[in-house]
Amino acid sequence: MSGWEIHPWLLRWDGLAVDQLRRTESVFALSNGHLGLRGTLDEGEPRGLPGTYLNGFYEAHALPYGESGYGYPEAGETVVNVTDGKVIRLLVEDEPLDMRYGRAHAHQRELDFRTGTLRRRTEWESPTGRRVTVRSERLVSLTQRAVAAIHYEVVPSEDVQLVVQSDLLANEPVEHDSDDPRVAAALNEPLVSDFAHAVDYRAVLAHHARNSGLRMAAAMDHELEVEDGVRTEMRAEGDLARFTAAVDVPAGGRLRLVKYLGYGWSAQRSVPALRAQVEAALAGARQTGWEGLLAEQRRFLDDFWEVADIEVHGDDELQQALRFALFHIMQAAVRGETRAIPGKGLTGPGYDGHAFWDTEMFVLPVLAYTVPEAARDALRWRHSTLPKARERAEVLGQAGAAFPWRSISGAECSAYWPASTAAFHVSGDVSHAVAQYVNATGDTAFERECGAEILVETARLWTSLGHHDQHGGFRVDGVTGPDEYSAVVDNNVYTNLIAQKNLREAAEACDRHPDVADRLDVTADEVADWRKAADGMVIPFDTLLGVHEQAEGFTSHAEWDFDGTDPDEYPLLLNRPYFDLYRKQVVKQADLVLAMHVRGDAFTPLQKARNFAYYDSRTVRDSSLSAGTQAVLAAEVGALRLAYDYLAEAAFTDLHDLHRNVHNGLHMASLAGAWVGMVAGFGGMRDHDGELSFAPRLPPGLSRMAFRMGFRGTRFAVEVEPGSVTYRIVSGGPLHTRHHGVPVVVSPDEPVTLSTPDPPEPPQVRQPPHRAPARRTPPGG
Amino acid sequence: MSGWEIHPWLLRWDGLAVDQLRRTESVFALSNGHLGLRGTLDEGEPRGLPGTYLNGFYEAHALPYGESGYGYPEAGETVVNVTDGKVIRLLVEDEPLDMRYGRAHAHQRELDFRTGTLRRRTEWESPTGRRVTVRSERLVSLTQRAVAAIHYEVVPSEDVQLVVQSDLLANEPVEHDSDDPRVAAALNEPLVSDFAHAVDYRAVLAHHARNSGLRMAAAMDHELEVEDGVRTEMRAEGDLARFTAAVDVPAGGRLRLVKYLGYGWSAQRSVPALRAQVEAALAGARQTGWEGLLAEQRRFLDDFWEVADIEVHGDDELQQALRFALFHIMQAAVRGETRAIPGKGLTGPGYDGHAFWDTEMFVLPVLAYTVPEAARDALRWRHSTLPKARERAEVLGQAGAAFPWRSISGAECSAYWPASTAAFHVSGDVSHAVAQYVNATGDTAFERECGAEILVETARLWTSLGHHDQHGGFRVDGVTGPDEYSAVVDNNVYTNLIAQKNLREAAEACDRHPDVADRLDVTADEVADWRKAADGMVIPFDTLLGVHEQAEGFTSHAEWDFDGTDPDEYPLLLNRPYFDLYRKQVVKQADLVLAMHVRGDAFTPLQKARNFAYYDSRTVRDSSLSAGTQAVLAAEVGALRLAYDYLAEAAFTDLHDLHRNVHNGLHMASLAGAWVGMVAGFGGMRDHDGELSFAPRLPPGLSRMAFRMGFRGTRFAVEVEPGSVTYRIVSGGPLHTRHHGVPVVVSPDEPVTLSTPDPPEPPQVRQPPHRAPARRTPPGG
Repeated sequence: MSGWEIHPWLLRWDGLAVDQLRRTESVFALSNGHLGLRGTLDEGEPRGLPGTYLNGFYEAHALPYGESGYGYPEAGETVVNVTDGKVIRLLVEDEPLDMRYGRAHAHQRELDFRTGTLRRRTEWESPTGRRVTVRSERLVSLTQRAVAAIHYEVVPSEDVQLVVQSDLLANEPVEHDSDDPRVAAALNEPLVSDFAHAVDYRAVLAHHARNSGLRMAAAMDHELEVEDGVRTEMRAEGDLARFTAAVDVPAGGRLRLVKYLGYGWSAQRSVPALRAQVEAALAGARQTGWEGLLAEQRRFLDDFWEVADIEVHGDDELQQALRFALFHIMQAAVRGETRAIPGKGLTGPGYDGHAFWDTEMFVLPVLAYTVPEAARDALRWRHSTLPKARERAEVLGQAGAAFPWRSISGAECSAYWPASTAAFHVSGDVSHAVAQYVNATGDTAFERECGAEILVETARLWTSLGHHDQHGGFRVDGVTGPDEYSAVVDNNVYTNLIAQKNLREAAEACDRHPDVADRLDVTADEVADWRKAADGMVIPFDTLLGVHEQAEGFTSHAEWDFDGTDPDEYPLLLNRPYFDLYRKQVVKQADLVLAMHVRGDAFTPLQKARNFAYYDSRTVRDSSLSAGTQAVLAAEVGALRLAYDYLAEAAFTDLHDLHRNVHNGLHMASLAGAWVGMVAGFGGMRDHDGELSFAPRLPPGLSRMAFRMGFRGTRFAVEVEPGSVTYRIVSGGPLHTRHHGVPVVVSPDEPVTLSTPDPPEPPQVRQPPHRAPARRTPPGG
Repeated sequence: MSGWEIHPWLLRWDGLAVDQLRRTESVFALSNGHLGLRGTLDEGEPRGLPGTYLNGFYEAHALPYGESGYGYPEAGETVVNVTDGKVIRLLVEDEPLDMRYGRAHAHQRELDFRTGTLRRRTEWESPTGRRVTVRSERLVSLTQRAVAAIHYEVVPSEDVQLVVQSDLLANEPVEHDSDDPRVAAALNEPLVSDFAHAVDYRAVLAHHARNSGLRMAAAMDHELEVEDGVRTEMRAEGDLARFTAAVDVPAGGRLRLVKYLGYGWSAQRSVPALRAQVEAALAGARQTGWEGLLAEQRRFLDDFWEVADIEVHGDDELQQALRFALFHIMQAAVRGETRAIPGKGLTGPGYDGHAFWDTEMFVLPVLAYTVPEAARDALRWRHSTLPKARERAEVLGQAGAAFPWRSISGAECSAYWPASTAAFHVSGDVSHAVAQYVNATGDTAFERECGAEILVETARLWTSLGHHDQHGGFRVDGVTGPDEYSAVVDNNVYTNLIAQKNLREAAEACDRHPDVADRLDVTADEVADWRKAADGMVIPFDTLLGVHEQAEGFTSHAEWDFDGTDPDEYPLLLNRPYFDLYRKQVVKQADLVLAMHVRGDAFTPLQKARNFAYYDSRTVRDSSLSAGTQAVLAAEVGALRLAYDYLAEAAFTDLHDLHRNVHNGLHMASLAGAWVGMVAGFGGMRDHDGELSFAPRLPPGLSRMAFRMGFRGTRFAVEVEPGSVTYRIVSGGPLHTRHHGVPVVVSPDEPVTLSTPDPPEPPQVRQPPHRAPARRTPPGG
């Protein structure tokens, strides 16, 4: 039982379930990509894990090694729970509101995808029998990036004294997973107080992180609406600022408090400058006011859903999950502004708050076609880290730039190089996202300013990483592809195809912008080398089996003993050593299959079918990154029922907590995988060589699906019904595309409806024992 | 300038050279394989690094990981500097003897390979002008394993008051290399006092190591010979026991002190039992007396040199180095008695005191043919660790037993699995040593009791590690061979050939001892599987280049940019990342070349010549394990001058401190490499399939060489002169062997002299730039 009530536009949890709090806090997290608040209860306790995050604000700590090596990163980075401004405590006749005591007659929390707010309604009876109704509504502004606000209302059922305490609280005790004493020490009270000030209903606290030295400030202001006779107090000291209001409220009366929060951080700015910044944010928020913030939020989201919504008929729970996914992806990114989009967004401390390659390969495709400014900003972050990526390449003895496996600042933070440093595809993935964004938007300014430089520096990496063999083939040896159950292999197909595209995109960008190429010291010889490397790229193929080798030698390796593997031994990495996983034909996550999605132009339909069958039977999906991609290829080869099951797995990863770690935050790439599964899977959307094309097919079980996208300023909808598809312009100019290979031009006000050809006969596909996706049966569907 | 004076039977350092102390302490270390004393000055200071080691006594500490993984070892082990009994301080009229003050008119230390003692003679004048001659002689008994003794004599040149303080001192401050705070904490005062007792001239201290819980005791007793009027005191407390003697010595008189030391440790025995043990050792030592101990030592060494000596004419420095090497190998092992032979012996704390595979592949061959009981005892240690090796195999999902990469107790202690866990050849190496020892001695009792079980359990490991491919070939994928600049590769030739031999030896042992096979639950099917795997073993060969591939794909990898590598960038692992080393054709140490030595039967002469030329030009010799093996193959393919250079490099690794780390202890495997280079290189000794054969060739520069060995109870000498070789029985029955392929029988009292054929035309061999071995020019030779 998931505990979630099904609604098309909101997500509601009824009741409390203390043991599920940490999980629901992740799901109910609010963010705008700059500031993130986990969905903790207003009163702070009971709680799962408090969490207030500022994108890019981290603490540093030494990375430990039992045996060190040249070029190993020495410093780790971990996201910090910053000053918590969410806390509003209530005392009812000196009895603190605490859901674990007294009696809850009603308790609901709901996340509304259209208002962009988290609402809470509680009817509570204190242990001494006093009854109050508490309503709160919380938002992190999607329009004012430094601002959050909480509307808090208490209605007692009889005359009662109420005291509210509204806090800014730094260095809350937080549990860590790390068993390294140095990491734990770094995260135990990481904030050092620099400044505390309170006046009237307003307070500011400023801190810096002990080791990283990054500075932050948080401020709060309040509007209080109560009966006469209220007595208030505001104090600030070190790690705590507290606004207290005490008042007698008669039956039928109410206490209404609006709390405005302003946040900021900087590596450069002084404490007074940071204080000024958060006070200015507060002033703006108060000027807008609570209702104004609500209205801005609604306008923003109406616009978002106009370009991003996905509708499905026949599976209401999936409908909800898809909007939930889109809402969170948007939230994680929209105001990130040259900061990374972490793997968990700002919903929890999982992965230490690091960003990975899956942002570029899963999250940015969604954004590029829905909120392209957010995709651009995330790529600007990558661009801003180029100096660190160049430095890393140099340490590694390579030319160009090598982007990190995991990072907050842009510096490599992984302590296990075979699964990180060796995963050079990261740099190709970033370039893929650059080319995709530029193509989807036509944003030449970005390409000239940032994109081309990324393409060029990563192309340089590839020519330095690879070499031409005796037969003229261009080999990239000793690298790790997306599949984390293989490492340090020669000629990983995914890596080589991504590198091939990277090299060609770089060459084309230099052709398009010769002045930019000049600025980057690109010579004609260099461009020729890129093209030669791309043309010679080695793509291992097992002629005996008629399938591609995920990497050289893969298909000669021993098969995994799936029959000797118990269902509870998954994920395998927790129960089997890397050495044994690496050398056998067991695949953690889509690797060759991902190559067949993003570089589908490099495979024939027959190869796709054979490869998909071969690799699907060896893929255990121990990663949340996999199901969405498997849905795409399953749909392409005609296995629509299977594709639907994979899609559902991606879509429900977080809501059903399939990996049992949602308590540490949501899986952004898996949420994006749901979009990818719908749009690239059942919609058949591809953008090879910059051409947008579709091949929609309705999965069994759905009577209709529709999705929206933007492409070079045009917003359009693709509406799929049994047997036919309608392409419709929502706004902007005409759309040139393909429908199942046939060129189509869709003009404004002239929707085009086309029939759907029959799907191909799918290959025989089997998953490893116990690893088939759950058969999707919509509740009541 | 090495600082060493050249003598055929001893090693002398004249003068002090405080900055060289730590290095000379390693070279002057005394040991019997159970107890080791670094060659510190009697008075304790100045010092490089104090060091008293008990083989197998270690402290445990957590192994840190930035990113942990299933099956990673959690506990590290580090050799501990135990209670120091070497210290004898002298006060000359209240001025402590300290070589840094006053004036040394003479100071010599010398290690005597025939007496097995370290002698010191110092003429010192105190800052106030008092002059004394101090002579000391120190031994670690080669016959009484728990015993060491020091003969200490002071002769003043005028009437003077002398005070001697003789200590047992625990928890001396020692510097550590570790940058891990947990390791440093574990090694900072690792000993906890359990017991201290003193009576008369005798004292005992008992301690245990804080984390490992291992217990140890040290005891001392004294004989004092002085003028009348001596005043003595003995006290013991916690970490210190001190015997003090004060006496007025007239001009022409002397103070003579004999200090006896007894050591013991146990994981099981109680403190009283340990005390009894070390007191019994002392009683035995005193009963034997100083002169008796000297006589025993001499008898033991006379016997050793009878079977082990190597003579060379024409290079006196090499002559000294070869005896130095043999002396230290013997010392490191002779009374080890079911403990490991660490990589540094008991000469220093390098490698944490761990034993590695090179003990089996380099040190045990020397011992098997000279002190076979020591080889047997070292293999008994491996046998005693089988439960841990089985457990490790099980954690790794394999059958049989997997011996550790590095260990003191037998448990894997490496924190970097690609270079350790994956190096499964370790288990093949152990089996190789078992078969070699059994063959060299005919020790059937050992084979039945221990050897067969090792062979069987490692054979089981191989059949579980490998698999038959579609073509019937038996593949061993994802392993690391000896070359540490490659890792986690498929079908490493060395590994596969060692595994092949392992599988066959196991099968043959089971045929020989069916009752033992029964006891080990070996079935006929299992033996058949071993033979099938051995017969199908994949040995990668590049037909285009006509050379073996070190591992599959090796010859397709990029060449290392040697021209772009500065001489000071070696060793490369300190200046280049593993990822780049692993994926290129750069070899740290003999790997395929080692295979061509120990499995020379698997290669044709032409293959050996081509392979040697190919790999020698890609081998940078960043490991001290390599030169000896390169000498062997260089000699075999006819490159005798080059072989001599490699041999000299192996022989002088420690005396010339070529790797600049002798301060942490000697390199036992490199010392053994000198023997291997002489006996297997210029002697051409091989023992393929149990047949002993020789193919001696005198290198240019030597006018004569002779070496001695034992084989199944027969001791014999091989004397090589220009153009001819004489085989002579020293003791025991006749010897069946081959001379350059021709069968020979050598009978007692009937030496056989045979002529030497011309060497083959060597291939063109070049080393990487800056990595050729130094051209050997004997000083004055």
